[in-house]
Amino acid sequence: MAEKTIPYKIYLEESEMPKYWYNVRADMKTKPAPLLNPATHKPMTAEELSAVFCDELIKQELDNDTREYPIPQEILDFYKMYRPSPLVRAYCLEEKLQTPAKIYYKFEGNNTSGSHKLNSAIAQAYYAKKQGLRGVTTETGAGQWGTALSMACSYLGLDCKVYMVKVSYEQKPFRREVMRTYGASVTASPSMTTEVGKKILAEHPGTTGSLGCAISEAVEAAVAHPGYRYVLGSVLNQVVLHQSVIGLETKIALDKYGIKPDIIIGCAGGGSNLGGLISPFVGEKLRGEADYRILAVEPASCPSLTRGVFAYDFCDTGMVCPLAKMYTLGADFIPAPNHAGGLRYHGMSPVLSQLYHDGYMEAISVPQTRVFEAAQKFARVEGILPAPESSHAICAAIDEAMKCKETGEEKTIVFGLTGTGYFDMVAYEKFNDGKMDDYIPTDAELAASFEKLPKID
Amino acid sequence: MAEKTIPYKIYLEESEMPKYWYNVRADMKTKPAPLLNPATHKPMTAEELSAVFCDELIKQELDNDTREYPIPQEILDFYKMYRPSPLVRAYCLEEKLQTPAKIYYKFEGNNTSGSHKLNSAIAQAYYAKKQGLRGVTTETGAGQWGTALSMACSYLGLDCKVYMVKVSYEQKPFRREVMRTYGASVTASPSMTTEVGKKILAEHPGTTGSLGCAISEAVEAAVAHPGYRYVLGSVLNQVVLHQSVIGLETKIALDKYGIKPDIIIGCAGGGSNLGGLISPFVGEKLRGEADYRILAVEPASCPSLTRGVFAYDFCDTGMVCPLAKMYTLGADFIPAPNHAGGLRYHGMSPVLSQLYHDGYMEAISVPQTRVFEAAQKFARVEGILPAPESSHAICAAIDEAMKCKETGEEKTIVFGLTGTGYFDMVAYEKFNDGKMDDYIPTDAELAASFEKLPKID
Repeated sequence: MAEKTIPYKIYLEESEMPKYWYNVRADMKTKPAPLLNPATHKPMTAEELSAVFCDELIKQELDNDTREYPIPQEILDFYKMYRPSPLVRAYCLEEKLQTPAKIYYKFEGNNTSGSHKLNSAIAQAYYAKKQGLRGVTTETGAGQWGTALSMACSYLGLDCKVYMVKVSYEQKPFRREVMRTYGASVTASPSMTTEVGKKILAEHPGTTGSLGCAISEAVEAAVAHPGYRYVLGSVLNQVVLHQSVIGLETKIALDKYGIKPDIIIGCAGGGSNLGGLISPFVGEKLRGEADYRILAVEPASCPSLTRGVFAYDFCDTGMVCPLAKMYTLGADFIPAPNHAGGLRYHGMSPVLSQLYHDGYMEAISVPQTRVFEAAQKFARVEGILPAPESSHAICAAIDEAMKCKETGEEKTIVFGLTGTGYFDMVAYEKFNDGKMDDYIPTDAELAASFEKLPKID
Repeated sequence: MAEKTIPYKIYLEESEMPKYWYNVRADMKTKPAPLLNPATHKPMTAEELSAVFCDELIKQELDNDTREYPIPQEILDFYKMYRPSPLVRAYCLEEKLQTPAKIYYKFEGNNTSGSHKLNSAIAQAYYAKKQGLRGVTTETGAGQWGTALSMACSYLGLDCKVYMVKVSYEQKPFRREVMRTYGASVTASPSMTTEVGKKILAEHPGTTGSLGCAISEAVEAAVAHPGYRYVLGSVLNQVVLHQSVIGLETKIALDKYGIKPDIIIGCAGGGSNLGGLISPFVGEKLRGEADYRILAVEPASCPSLTRGVFAYDFCDTGMVCPLAKMYTLGADFIPAPNHAGGLRYHGMSPVLSQLYHDGYMEAISVPQTRVFEAAQKFARVEGILPAPESSHAICAAIDEAMKCKETGEEKTIVFGLTGTGYFDMVAYEKFNDGKMDDYIPTDAELAASFEKLPKID
């Protein structure tokens, strides 16, 4: 191995940390399509959104023009509690693979939410607090977002109501307890606390819930409780904006050492981490200042970019949310029960969907047994047990590094390691016991799902 | 709050990281008493120890004179994977408490073992590998040490056999799966795989195991398998030596910013973290170069320093290990079943025991409900869900900071935050549900336990 002139971990100084979020939409020639009112199919106005979302966040959501948003001092202070996150040179993985590639990962798991979700949670909670609200509602699947929001709300003294997909609520009691330790109230969804929950339970008495259903409940709860608004951890434009702190820190760290990446890889569910990681890089690409290969990696069992359609669709099961134009598998699509690896939302961030549609990034899907093989390989040499979500990116990064081994190219690969897998040990146990298998939806299943898409002129 | 001239987190540069471990025994006027052969009551020789321990580690164990041990390059490289750990200024906690005290904590939880245990695990695994061994055996209670050792062994390609206290094996299946993911074999103890395990099971068929029993099994397994040795995560002198990296990093970081601590606080079970954290500071104290208040904090339900006796005792239940002179509650002492907070070993590191006996440090004990209250308070403002073990130190640090609030003193408090509580959510759930209570052993119970101490001339 060559002399290690780059540190194992690059930590920015506090003074080097980004002071603004970067809004990639400002540089997009084709802007993401607007959210539509599900009743009228007309673009949602700020006023219409204000019953559900905080005012300042609506402004960010609808703003396709402002390039830089200064990060408020209170949020900068909170960021300093767990940021900067390290940009890690994967020397040990490189040696294990015997690859000439140089591999870096931006590790977002060094905080109790276990992921990058905290970056947007604190922003959304901050604007809710600033608006004088009492609390916020949200949904959570695996629990990373719910945990992050609980932490942010507890820090700011806001109430936090989390609707947790029932199957996770029951199978992941420990995530639930982390949220409760941070003072959040956690309700298994679907529940009898909302009209939409009651309706779904009446129609499907044995259901174990879904993200789309929990979203509907959280939105209804926000509207029903005075002084509450709904917040969301992925998909939305504002989330990609807040998460740009990941990419900005990454770029500052790379620039500091004169490193130019060839390939940037991120896992993709709703797009929060991928969007944040690639924002400043794709910005350069959009402005014609630099070129990078950008690669989204999604589960083969929930392949919205690689096998979905680019169309307006519902964001939730109860159809109470605005319609979004995105790559989607249909709002009723739920990954097969044996899918363990997160990234289970049926649609993709409208920003990322548009960028993908316009050819600014590539996408692949990987089956989960390969994902867990990559996770284990990574854990054993890099000392971090990765989240299944993050391991999709690891899998693709290893594949790219192995291609370099074949060709002898010394490519620089950067990937996003979104978090840790400490609350995913049931899935790891399945893998350790050789009981994990793959399920890839058939074309017929997807076609049936696409037929239910709303018809928009 | 004053201007924040000290960063929230101080990370050393790689070039600033310690290159040697510091052996505090070299500066002790009264050396820790030697390990005794349990049969002859004579000091154990290196030869006698060599059936159980690695040769190089025996040298370190018996060496009371060498002040500095250079850290081998391979271990330095491994350390760079997850070290330096941050020294964090607890600005948010200070603000919450409204204290004039300045609070710092050395956070060792940013690695998958979730604690400082990895610092000694990699060292012990390295010397086993260097000796040409096939593998190592050990015991684990809560699983932090077993996880750390699994990680180190997987990195070096050594086999790792872990005897896990049965109650933990059953109640903490996720820790077990982390170890399995790192390739370790994990056996619930007591087991039928060893003679001592069979004997204990015959005598106590329903037993849920104990650390002392798992140690006996691991030692027997090491002796029974050619090419294996036994390794231990706490208590031993060598462990305090390796863990000195914590204190050395802390001291370098403090010196860099011209900060002189008034009080140094650590939780104390077997003494691995406390010993490592305080080593360089107590060294200055021993050499008369500086003075610090040093405070050990132990659970009220397992109070070896505060209520134990300073005497030779067995290290394990099966009485196969050498005798150590230490503060002990008696080798059969097991904390009450409602004790959730770790730190459950019956004895204390001979190094720390001697330092305490000679007046170089103080000790207090705290009941577990207070510990979890402190944990929750800390988690909500500092964004880290602490391990119950670490929360003993948090509790004492908060108490000291509140005293400063009363007196107006701007004391500088440094404490060791040994790790995270992500695998301790059963205990947090108990606390969240208001179902946690305290148990403090009676004087009569302890007196009965002391009667079983071996009689040494």
